[in-house]
Amino acid sequence: MKILNTVNDVKTAIKELQKAGRKVGLVPTMGFLHAGHMSLVKKSVADNDFTVVSVFVNPTQFGPNEDLEAYPRDFENDTKLLTDAGADLIFSPSPEEMYPEGFSTKVSVSGITNALCGLSRPVHFDGVATVVTKLFNIVNPDRAYFGSKDYQQLQVIRRMVKDLNMSVEVIGMPIIRESDGLAMSSRNIYLKPEERTSALSLSKSFGLIQKLLDNGERDARVLRQKVVDYINSHSSAHVDYVEIIHPEKLNSLETVNGDIVAALAVKIGRARLIDNKLFKI
Amino acid sequence: MKILNTVNDVKTAIKELQKAGRKVGLVPTMGFLHAGHMSLVKKSVADNDFTVVSVFVNPTQFGPNEDLEAYPRDFENDTKLLTDAGADLIFSPSPEEMYPEGFSTKVSVSGITNALCGLSRPVHFDGVATVVTKLFNIVNPDRAYFGSKDYQQLQVIRRMVKDLNMSVEVIGMPIIRESDGLAMSSRNIYLKPEERTSALSLSKSFGLIQKLLDNGERDARVLRQKVVDYINSHSSAHVDYVEIIHPEKLNSLETVNGDIVAALAVKIGRARLIDNKLFKI
Repeated sequence: MKILNTVNDVKTAIKELQKAGRKVGLVPTMGFLHAGHMSLVKKSVADNDFTVVSVFVNPTQFGPNEDLEAYPRDFENDTKLLTDAGADLIFSPSPEEMYPEGFSTKVSVSGITNALCGLSRPVHFDGVATVVTKLFNIVNPDRAYFGSKDYQQLQVIRRMVKDLNMSVEVIGMPIIRESDGLAMSSRNIYLKPEERTSALSLSKSFGLIQKLLDNGERDARVLRQKVVDYINSHSSAHVDYVEIIHPEKLNSLETVNGDIVAALAVKIGRARLIDNKLFKI
Repeated sequence: MKILNTVNDVKTAIKELQKAGRKVGLVPTMGFLHAGHMSLVKKSVADNDFTVVSVFVNPTQFGPNEDLEAYPRDFENDTKLLTDAGADLIFSPSPEEMYPEGFSTKVSVSGITNALCGLSRPVHFDGVATVVTKLFNIVNPDRAYFGSKDYQQLQVIRRMVKDLNMSVEVIGMPIIRESDGLAMSSRNIYLKPEERTSALSLSKSFGLIQKLLDNGERDARVLRQKVVDYINSHSSAHVDYVEIIHPEKLNSLETVNGDIVAALAVKIGRARLIDNKLFKI
């Protein structure tokens, strides 16, 4: 497997491949790979002739008081995992390669970013949309793979690709969970043992919602409040948000009269964890 | 020559061409073509195997009190001119095709837009950057051609292409002028005969600047003030701005100690006209 660090080297490598008619898949990551990432890589390897995985902790999607410096990194292990999974190329640029002096362009998606993580992380999605646009232009992938844990991120990218007429096919993949239900996340490493138990309150909330829905509850505000109460009383977690939203528009619902997504963000110790689940009605 | 109105039709047509290894040039225009536009088209026809000209009066680059409705259109004549010049495809989408319901993505360039036309037209360059990004993604050109009359626009596009790692080569072409010096513009049609004479004050200013530079003047504020005085006393034009700027950074200069660009915007009757000239020191 190749490891490249510059935009030009990747562009040159990809141009050669595409001249030969080969299909390219891209899995954008911030590294410290877990089974969630690897499910995307495996899908890309299966779907395409050539799989590029970008490993780049993107500074512009972190707020000033967030965990950019602390964000976990293990490039050696990432390389081993990606080699074993059959990826073909790691693109691992420096921040200076991606944002050289004078950089001053931004891609932003409005509307669906004025909710959920967009409220508590105001610069986050501009950073995501901009770096993903750059990665798409560098790698020119036929398909790009994103996990569904970052549900809002996936919708932001779908919106951006549609609005800007990008030619890539965006493929959203299911959340991968630990055996006890905790959604895989690079940030789970921040959790101390007792916090790890508290973190289960996120995925357990979905069982509560399902039970309420099965019992005929259709008031979204009741669903929301019961989850907030449950998390507050069963864990040391601090709720950032609990929302019952429309699956595409992401607006908060008052009444359940179609499919819904329950989306949660909680702070537990140093970690801010997110999770979500689609409920078919 | 083909005329296509939908994004998908253009994407399909271009994909076929590029599979066959043919080079594609793009000339983005708002139509009502004049000799300035046609110089870009001819250059593209000479440089590439296939030339796409987009004809789209882009609503998002007009401010609320600007001339969107009045902007001149003559698609029949445009088609004739482009056919004669050897263009291969006109892309002429509706506003709804470019901005369907729910559209909510924006590309913006900061820094160099906080000057010149960016000050009096605050939404203008976001509109330009976004529509040009869309056109680049739709047409996937090897080269794209822009005139230099919109000097700031050309720099914004160069910045955006560099920052977002777009693969297109941006080619800036010289301003084309009427025989009396007036820069070609679709908006010149707004000028009444006596205003047409006033409009010559823009290009004549450059003669004044050259004379001052030849006489050793190096205070950019003096150059600026002399041009403002000249335009105010020799025409019915209202100065929007006169700036002596750095050719790439576009910041206003106090002292001339390298190449400069003189950039002007004036209002004459209904028309807002711009012009600029590079002075080699």
